[in-house]
Amino acid sequence: MNRKFLLALFIFCSVVFELSAQNTDSVTVRKIYTYSLEKGKAYEWLDALCNQVGHRLSGSEGAAKAVALTKNLLETERHCKVYLQEVMVPRWRRNDVEKLGVTMGKYQTSVRICSLGGSIGTPTEGIQAKMVEVKSFGELDSLGKKVAGKIVFFNIVFDQSYISTFDAYSVAATYRYNGAKSAAKYGAVASITRSMTTAMDNNPHTGSMGYVDSIKKIPACAVSTQGAEFLSAAIKNDASLMLDLKMNCETLPDTLSYNVIAEIKGSEFPDEIIVVGGHLDSWDVGQGAHDDGAGCVQAMEVIQTFKALGIKPKRTIRVVLFMNEENGTRGGKKYAEIAKEKGEKHIAAIESDAGGFTPQGFGSECIDSTKLIRFQNYSQLMKPYGLHNWSESWGGVDIGPLKETGTLLIGLVPDSQRYFDYHHSMIDTFDKVNRRELQLGAAAMTSLVYLLSEHGVEGGK
Amino acid sequence: MNRKFLLALFIFCSVVFELSAQNTDSVTVRKIYTYSLEKGKAYEWLDALCNQVGHRLSGSEGAAKAVALTKNLLETERHCKVYLQEVMVPRWRRNDVEKLGVTMGKYQTSVRICSLGGSIGTPTEGIQAKMVEVKSFGELDSLGKKVAGKIVFFNIVFDQSYISTFDAYSVAATYRYNGAKSAAKYGAVASITRSMTTAMDNNPHTGSMGYVDSIKKIPACAVSTQGAEFLSAAIKNDASLMLDLKMNCETLPDTLSYNVIAEIKGSEFPDEIIVVGGHLDSWDVGQGAHDDGAGCVQAMEVIQTFKALGIKPKRTIRVVLFMNEENGTRGGKKYAEIAKEKGEKHIAAIESDAGGFTPQGFGSECIDSTKLIRFQNYSQLMKPYGLHNWSESWGGVDIGPLKETGTLLIGLVPDSQRYFDYHHSMIDTFDKVNRRELQLGAAAMTSLVYLLSEHGVEGGK
Repeated sequence: MNRKFLLALFIFCSVVFELSAQNTDSVTVRKIYTYSLEKGKAYEWLDALCNQVGHRLSGSEGAAKAVALTKNLLETERHCKVYLQEVMVPRWRRNDVEKLGVTMGKYQTSVRICSLGGSIGTPTEGIQAKMVEVKSFGELDSLGKKVAGKIVFFNIVFDQSYISTFDAYSVAATYRYNGAKSAAKYGAVASITRSMTTAMDNNPHTGSMGYVDSIKKIPACAVSTQGAEFLSAAIKNDASLMLDLKMNCETLPDTLSYNVIAEIKGSEFPDEIIVVGGHLDSWDVGQGAHDDGAGCVQAMEVIQTFKALGIKPKRTIRVVLFMNEENGTRGGKKYAEIAKEKGEKHIAAIESDAGGFTPQGFGSECIDSTKLIRFQNYSQLMKPYGLHNWSESWGGVDIGPLKETGTLLIGLVPDSQRYFDYHHSMIDTFDKVNRRELQLGAAAMTSLVYLLSEHGVEGGK
Repeated sequence: MNRKFLLALFIFCSVVFELSAQNTDSVTVRKIYTYSLEKGKAYEWLDALCNQVGHRLSGSEGAAKAVALTKNLLETERHCKVYLQEVMVPRWRRNDVEKLGVTMGKYQTSVRICSLGGSIGTPTEGIQAKMVEVKSFGELDSLGKKVAGKIVFFNIVFDQSYISTFDAYSVAATYRYNGAKSAAKYGAVASITRSMTTAMDNNPHTGSMGYVDSIKKIPACAVSTQGAEFLSAAIKNDASLMLDLKMNCETLPDTLSYNVIAEIKGSEFPDEIIVVGGHLDSWDVGQGAHDDGAGCVQAMEVIQTFKALGIKPKRTIRVVLFMNEENGTRGGKKYAEIAKEKGEKHIAAIESDAGGFTPQGFGSECIDSTKLIRFQNYSQLMKPYGLHNWSESWGGVDIGPLKETGTLLIGLVPDSQRYFDYHHSMIDTFDKVNRRELQLGAAAMTSLVYLLSEHGVEGGK
């Protein structure tokens, strides 16, 4: 045999091998989708998490129950090592007083409110003050000290013109997080935020807010979109209207909680770890169905599907249900801290935290741009499943701390249209989740984990 | 000036003109989306159609009310010529008796049913017979005359493994349409079909069925998916179980109804017509919200948006709300017949009849393949709005009869995951429609009509 022949033979064999691998991959991805749509357990697990546990703010009884339930469900799979990772979490409690009275001359009424997570309460007798409506931080700054002694109402309308609702949310959410301290800087006594939602209804949406040590802490709450429209009309009608705000939420000392972890060791490259997860905590209203029960059960389904289809991953798969995404990211930080201490090599981390809606693709980020380019190779295999969006964007809050060590961070991108109708409110409940939409997300995540476990971050070889 | 310079000047001007046109188009499309998401009326019109009118089967009082309501709504736009086009439609009535009793030894129960559209009723005293369950036409054929005197139960499970639920529906729907005649051929006395739905619940789904003159007509109904699971379990438990079927649906003589049409004359090419529509009739259960109230109000929004933004189309725009898609397509056929008689030139027809869910693109079909290729040129302008699916496929039932004259047929393709949960059932109601998802579909249709009205079917110049 001459060298030319050997070279030709080598090329031929490589091509055959390449085609064969691609064929195996596409067959396996198809099997994963069929299994997930027909027999997957994500939907029934979400039912249990929502209807047996319900909401589960870090440090609450619900959070402890959620840890126990998901640990138990993962253990019944008998296919993986399940363990808890200790993490100290903040402990904020809403308690039972949330009241906003409105007095216009002789007319009195009240508006539904929802304390913002992390807020202090009011004195027991409440805060009685006039209201100032502003439409931006710029307007607040131009009013300056004129808001002293008053309650500032940030009436920021959620911008419906964005195609992705997350773009509108990121603009509005800064008012929820920074509203109280911005108003307190000028002497305001409390702040009210219009709920960040695409819906026009009477459900106030909570979410985190923050203080800084240098500025006096004032109470902060949200009103619903209908409540905001009412307040805005009322102040135009009667500039001297009086508010009476009563809240008794409080922050208690940090408490012990856990990340729930399930692991299947890789058969060929056990030291190369792929994380897939969502966050187990939720806000303390509704059931945290889309945010982020959906992401948790989708990640759990990876383990379940691998077992059902007899897939033995070449690399180590670690399902992580992170604690405390909503008000501290302590779970994500702790996970990355321990991974660093142990010198673990995380090649990729995938997070689902944008709701259990029809998946449209994966966003990705990495400090090593070559990995991002290679990651795109997987898109061809997954486009037949409606996964058309493979833009470079954001991975997720919980996996974020893994970025600095060069981990490829990947976020599931579902359809965003309904997410903020429910987000952080009492209507984020199990009945808002469609079985097929949720299962398609689980199948997308499982397929991607499979491909990464076969080929690493070199991309779709 | 020499010829080379003139040529260069010409090319330069062409490029500037081209870029300028593209820029104008992208600005207008963005304006259409912003308007539709912030101020569009499709959602409030659908509320009126569903909650003031409700379901509206051809020939029913509801259908007459829907014609009056939509004509009135379009006339208030004062921007277009609104008229009715007469069409004779079939008139089938469900009436008030729909009952399926099940006797197993001493145990008696009943299962919810829904007569299939077009079915005859049973004798007043009902049909008492044994049941045979089949899983396919092949199984029915192999049983042959053994089903004589019995009720055939087509227990065809909706195939959840398809990514587009329409693919599963097209497989299953043949059993609904052809089940009765296939069973009657072997002497069966009635047929029952498992509902064609992605959901596991107790809502039976109706839909059209057909007879042929050469085979005896037998009654046909649907059971819910839970009902089907029950019947299947029951027959395994007791092969001699008896059914007692009572239905009093009937077919009355054809009656007069209407297509509702609104037209804006084109400023430059008034003889080139672009049709955009949905179907105004629905099945006689639920509110016909997704099927196809959504398509109607999205088409109506084209007129409304053009008026609000001051867009004067170069080509003639005709919004057509077709009557009788569900059980005869008489409206679509009549429209095409009259268009042919008048020698009208329809360059394109767009239909929305797959639900008011997040739009994913447009399917297209045409006997002139060059138009299909040119049509793809529009995709680049619309991909930023999530419209990634531009496959060659199917336009729609109502616009179908326009195909033979070379019209480019285009169907809006929305996310399909939830559609068959509701389709043809009592839960296809207004509350199942998300405002943003519906409005995005309206914006997609309006944008496409705008582009076609500017550039014809030459594609995105």
